[in-house]
Amino acid sequence: MGETLLCGGLVWQPGLDVESADILIRDGVIAAVGAGTDDSPDAAVIDIPGRLVLPGLVEAHCHLDKTLYGGPWVPHSAGEPLAERIANDRNRRGELGIPDVDRITALLERMVAAGTSYVRSHTDVDPEVGLRGVEAVRAAAARLDGRVTVEQVAFPQHGVLVNPGTAELLEEALKGGVETIGGIDPAGFDRDPVGQLDLIFGLAERYGAGIDIHLHDGGTLGAFEFELIIERTEAAGLGGRVAISHGYALPQIDAAPRERLIERLAAAGVSLVTGAVYDFPVPPVKKLRAAGANVACGHDGIRDLWGPFGSGDMLERAMHLAYRNTFRRDDDIELALEAATHGGARLLGLGAYGIVPGAPADLVVVQAETPAAAVVTRPVRDLVLKNGRVVARDGELVPAS
Amino acid sequence: MGETLLCGGLVWQPGLDVESADILIRDGVIAAVGAGTDDSPDAAVIDIPGRLVLPGLVEAHCHLDKTLYGGPWVPHSAGEPLAERIANDRNRRGELGIPDVDRITALLERMVAAGTSYVRSHTDVDPEVGLRGVEAVRAAAARLDGRVTVEQVAFPQHGVLVNPGTAELLEEALKGGVETIGGIDPAGFDRDPVGQLDLIFGLAERYGAGIDIHLHDGGTLGAFEFELIIERTEAAGLGGRVAISHGYALPQIDAAPRERLIERLAAAGVSLVTGAVYDFPVPPVKKLRAAGANVACGHDGIRDLWGPFGSGDMLERAMHLAYRNTFRRDDDIELALEAATHGGARLLGLGAYGIVPGAPADLVVVQAETPAAAVVTRPVRDLVLKNGRVVARDGELVPAS
Repeated sequence: MGETLLCGGLVWQPGLDVESADILIRDGVIAAVGAGTDDSPDAAVIDIPGRLVLPGLVEAHCHLDKTLYGGPWVPHSAGEPLAERIANDRNRRGELGIPDVDRITALLERMVAAGTSYVRSHTDVDPEVGLRGVEAVRAAAARLDGRVTVEQVAFPQHGVLVNPGTAELLEEALKGGVETIGGIDPAGFDRDPVGQLDLIFGLAERYGAGIDIHLHDGGTLGAFEFELIIERTEAAGLGGRVAISHGYALPQIDAAPRERLIERLAAAGVSLVTGAVYDFPVPPVKKLRAAGANVACGHDGIRDLWGPFGSGDMLERAMHLAYRNTFRRDDDIELALEAATHGGARLLGLGAYGIVPGAPADLVVVQAETPAAAVVTRPVRDLVLKNGRVVARDGELVPAS
Repeated sequence: MGETLLCGGLVWQPGLDVESADILIRDGVIAAVGAGTDDSPDAAVIDIPGRLVLPGLVEAHCHLDKTLYGGPWVPHSAGEPLAERIANDRNRRGELGIPDVDRITALLERMVAAGTSYVRSHTDVDPEVGLRGVEAVRAAAARLDGRVTVEQVAFPQHGVLVNPGTAELLEEALKGGVETIGGIDPAGFDRDPVGQLDLIFGLAERYGAGIDIHLHDGGTLGAFEFELIIERTEAAGLGGRVAISHGYALPQIDAAPRERLIERLAAAGVSLVTGAVYDFPVPPVKKLRAAGANVACGHDGIRDLWGPFGSGDMLERAMHLAYRNTFRRDDDIELALEAATHGGARLLGLGAYGIVPGAPADLVVVQAETPAAAVVTRPVRDLVLKNGRVVARDGELVPAS
């Protein structure tokens, strides 16, 4: 691929002032930051004077397999209670032809055009749909041909213990290469928190998989499940490979137990993944980060049977996270941007990430006066690079040449 | 101005299915909806096949005088406590040259380009700034030359009773033609709810002004102030001319007293105005509308010393309102759109409004499959008309010809 030099941009590193620096890319990898053109006279030069350069955005929690994106508008048809929404999802996904590789592809293309380089998708695995969702997401990701990296979580949307056959399919998914195993409300859904968690942690250990558990259970019940997850993470030595998604209990419980729980999340290396969706409780990002706990950010559903919202734009998602945290100061708003970049990278266990030598050249170039302004204004992505290749320009996907 | 025929659009009326209908505009007023071209052979035809037509959006609560919009990014510099944010506002507005007619103009232009036809702006009136804010907003509105209608509220941001000289300036503002008088936390800020409210209602009655009171006071204290406002509205016969902005107490109090308060708001004709901003409590829109209480919607601050967020786009604001109400169904999401259109029109007491014969031809044309989809996707405004004149096209202001 040779060499490319991004010239004159302002490079963002979390917690630091932006710095004017050229970025030299060699064979898809960042070779130098701050290098002058003199060092590499043969590099193809892309001038981005005064533009802000962010690392590739990380969508840390979505459900690609469920999406209706790119198809006709489907008015939401479920009632409010969770049971109704689950039944609606089950009943209508067949009728609507979900999972649909074309729709997943359309959404992934939109994500890439908006600067997303990595996606963690929770894919339904249950006796009804089997592994079709996993295969559909894989097929769509393959169509994107390297423009984005997609990791899947085998997700038991309809419960594990209460849905016979699901555990076997989760195991089959892991055997077949799915990277991460999911779970859902071990108490509220499966009625047996220890039973579900022991099963999930057992499978994760057996197959060397990561863990990412949907935890909507609130208040002290949810907090108890946080503790069970932390205990098992420590016992299994899985620090850094376990995440709790949503985790509504954390913002709901009293301040003193909340602070203890945050300390324990940090010590155990359990990430918290949030979408800041609808009116659901949002974790205290600043307190979590101050304690050293990792926070990542994702859309949750995007235009699916669970709700019509979601754009695939991770700067918009960071806006929601900042907004619901009542962040107003630039350094605070940057914490939301960090969740949508480095926080997601830590969640995914990406060894090399960011605008540093040795990392893949996954970069987003925008016109924004500060990183916080990028979250507030969500400008068109001027340029998106994945492994050094320009994959989007002016907000549109660059077609294969 | 002659006749214009908008041909082939899908017309939205709250609570109804969209209907394909031509809109005939004569001398800036809607002359007919559903009329065919046959009826008016000389009309200039604008084809908008399959496009959604909404009435002009109504920004029901903003602070034009404070905005830094269109100028360089100003990182937020205040601490979190309200007292610090007020002091920061006071200290820095001089340094930053606020109020600034150019910036207010820039924001109004953005609002028009995004389809806003009417704006209610709460303008600071206090002994320090005097009536300069009122004059600056007037000057900016004049520059817009009829593209948008701006109504002002004389707003005592720094208190009434606790800030000597403010009451006199509020009166001067009303004498000078400001349409509405504001207030702020009669208990929490002025420490004397009856004292502030009696003063404000007295001035409103004397000058025939409307009333719109910022009420952040929460819980039972705020609910008590709701009651004081309702009692005075009924006693003064001001139903339909009084509003409470923010009103965080309403969603905070217990369900039973909340439902009683909603009934009383509806009976008294007191509107509730909400921004659904940050993480602040959001009113239950569906319950309010079901009871017959009016709900309007606005940004609150846009890019100012109180916070950097806000775009001026009322479809985005409706998205926040729908989102925080956990609206997923089309008919629910339309309630947020109604707040950003008809609800605002009722707040402002616009006699003729909407896509009906006799109303000013204030219209927004967008590409969206349903009204709810317009809120979810916030498409570029293809066409914006104010009094029948095309004031914006493809998301950009149409310059004076």
